[in-house]
Amino acid sequence: MTTIRRAVSIPGAVLASDRSARAAWSQIAEPDDPRVTALIAEHGPVDGLVAALSSPAPTHRIFAQRAARTDLGAAAEFARRHGIAVLIPGDPQWPQGVDDLACPPVCLWIRGEPDLSALRRRSVAVVGSRTSTAYGDNLAGDIAAGIAERGFAVVSGAAFGIDRAAHLGALAVGGRTIAVLAGGVDRPYPAAHTALLQHIASVGSVVSEAPPGWAPTRPRFLLRNRLIATMTSGTVVVEAGLRSGSLNTARCAELHSRPVGAVPGPVTSAVSAGCHQAVRDGLAVLVTDAAEVVDLMGVLGADSAPHVSGPVRPEDRLGPVEALTFAAVPHRAPASIEDIACAAGLTPLEVMGALARLELEDFVVQGNGGWKRRPTRTRGSRQPEGEGCATVET
Amino acid sequence: MTTIRRAVSIPGAVLASDRSARAAWSQIAEPDDPRVTALIAEHGPVDGLVAALSSPAPTHRIFAQRAARTDLGAAAEFARRHGIAVLIPGDPQWPQGVDDLACPPVCLWIRGEPDLSALRRRSVAVVGSRTSTAYGDNLAGDIAAGIAERGFAVVSGAAFGIDRAAHLGALAVGGRTIAVLAGGVDRPYPAAHTALLQHIASVGSVVSEAPPGWAPTRPRFLLRNRLIATMTSGTVVVEAGLRSGSLNTARCAELHSRPVGAVPGPVTSAVSAGCHQAVRDGLAVLVTDAAEVVDLMGVLGADSAPHVSGPVRPEDRLGPVEALTFAAVPHRAPASIEDIACAAGLTPLEVMGALARLELEDFVVQGNGGWKRRPTRTRGSRQPEGEGCATVET
Repeated sequence: MTTIRRAVSIPGAVLASDRSARAAWSQIAEPDDPRVTALIAEHGPVDGLVAALSSPAPTHRIFAQRAARTDLGAAAEFARRHGIAVLIPGDPQWPQGVDDLACPPVCLWIRGEPDLSALRRRSVAVVGSRTSTAYGDNLAGDIAAGIAERGFAVVSGAAFGIDRAAHLGALAVGGRTIAVLAGGVDRPYPAAHTALLQHIASVGSVVSEAPPGWAPTRPRFLLRNRLIATMTSGTVVVEAGLRSGSLNTARCAELHSRPVGAVPGPVTSAVSAGCHQAVRDGLAVLVTDAAEVVDLMGVLGADSAPHVSGPVRPEDRLGPVEALTFAAVPHRAPASIEDIACAAGLTPLEVMGALARLELEDFVVQGNGGWKRRPTRTRGSRQPEGEGCATVET
Repeated sequence: MTTIRRAVSIPGAVLASDRSARAAWSQIAEPDDPRVTALIAEHGPVDGLVAALSSPAPTHRIFAQRAARTDLGAAAEFARRHGIAVLIPGDPQWPQGVDDLACPPVCLWIRGEPDLSALRRRSVAVVGSRTSTAYGDNLAGDIAAGIAERGFAVVSGAAFGIDRAAHLGALAVGGRTIAVLAGGVDRPYPAAHTALLQHIASVGSVVSEAPPGWAPTRPRFLLRNRLIATMTSGTVVVEAGLRSGSLNTARCAELHSRPVGAVPGPVTSAVSAGCHQAVRDGLAVLVTDAAEVVDLMGVLGADSAPHVSGPVRPEDRLGPVEALTFAAVPHRAPASIEDIACAAGLTPLEVMGALARLELEDFVVQGNGGWKRRPTRTRGSRQPEGEGCATVET
């Protein structure tokens, strides 16, 4: 059966299921197209495709134009022959994080392990400059290995430099790693990473929103970044110049409320300048090792990094209400009891009691109409007001 | 005339003026002694000294014991002969910042230029590890030179490493630099810096709370740090190990509401670990050059650093009420209108109007019961909700 709409024929196989219709959508629409999101939301993938290809609206003509030059069943057929999985929203393996995007992918094409469902809870995007330094590569590898050893998958973009070092670091410890590409998963890019991507596909996953055959164009790289930023628990930038695409990933992560870390380096290094800027702008938290990355990403408590100044943090000894309250008290600008209660998920009454106990233990101080944390090093060594600085150990 | 109290004689010259009495106080009391502060506050320096030396209280016996072994006029006489100035609180040249301490110095001994009155408004403490790296020394020198070129004095402790590099950087551009010592200004410490301290005294100032002849003991180093932290506009730490004394200076500066900066470095460097920790703890702002240091210390606007990602910051175009409001809006945890008004020194009504305008211009966002800054890179390029990440330039 063939349906004809404005000189475009849609093969019956394409209209046979949401999955095959979404695979066809993937062939005629660029990622992140709000028209596609709207049509699928209104009509579903199958009828939405029919509507797109028969629409007389000039804004929608591009779909019919592309369809006229495309075999709409080809990508799905290619995938079937080459063992490439096609995930669609609602699949149990779907990476739920990407649904936070205004325009989630219509489908994902995957070589290797297709189950991406755990990534939102338990993975870290490790990204950075293609023109990295040996310092950055070593760190990216060490941090990725440490993340992987703690049970988190390492997600990156398979580019030269930091991306490659991150994938290798995870692979080196037998960890899980996922490469998200801008072009089709059948088109290794860069070509020099063909063997690396083959290896990642054999033990992890190679993922793309673009159908097989598509080239990794510049806009698609930027759109790829939004997948890396949202499918993961958070993003860490290891080295980045001031205009690095990895900062784009970091901003996207922050926009979608994922924690962002940035690794410092010499201020004389141009590829650390973006990391320093991200910390200065409040976009990223400064992190120096895998423990601090996982601390930033992970479940409070279970994954918390040891405070590097000592073996046990005083806050490790807090009860649950105090711990939740303390975690919600800001470092600098004082917050009201209401704000802290809101952030901690507690009642103002519980917070008031906890703050009183935390104040007694020197964890927090009151002032300027709110509460803030006492600087870490003066905790537990309370001294007469104004003299603390003179007696703290050096 | 000689006054006898409990077997201690106080020469008449000592009791002739507040200045000579304070010089004598300096000889019998360690810095930061709350008993001294209380006695002087209650009786004044002259009668307080008489009271201290005649007190039957066991807690005050130490003063008479020390006085019995001291010529109470000797330090002032030595200073007069050697051209060492004795400043006391209330002198127009007094560094007013130290009055913020619970126990300000009873007097200050100064070789070189005695006018320290401008330091609170226009100086930066540049401090760090004695066991610095070449990276740290170079940076400390560059940053100190840049600070000095912008009209700020560079204050440090004349120690090996970062301190020395900071003094040299300021001297290299003909800038003003002040060395604050833990022992007497007649006792160059470390001895290897005798020539350096002589040079600083000839073009800048060498300052101590300890009278001539006193040795630089370990507790006096810690007490010296509180002077460096409070006499300046703010403190920047260039390199510091996790237990470095320069972090003690930084914490003292923060305790007294002076801004603190820390320079990042390789995470593999032990003497950058303290700087990174200070940024992570919210004690310090990450700074990478002199412009950013002065931006942190200086008057808003006049000294603001260019944002390194571009020539003009959007906030440079704000009106005065918007600029003050924006400066008071936190980056992360949202703040209430009342908190922002308090921090900005404006009325809640003025802040409400300014926030509305700032929101329109994409500077701030509302949420979680308060206001916070919108991340810098997405400002001025407003996009449909949730899609900003895909279209920001890379």
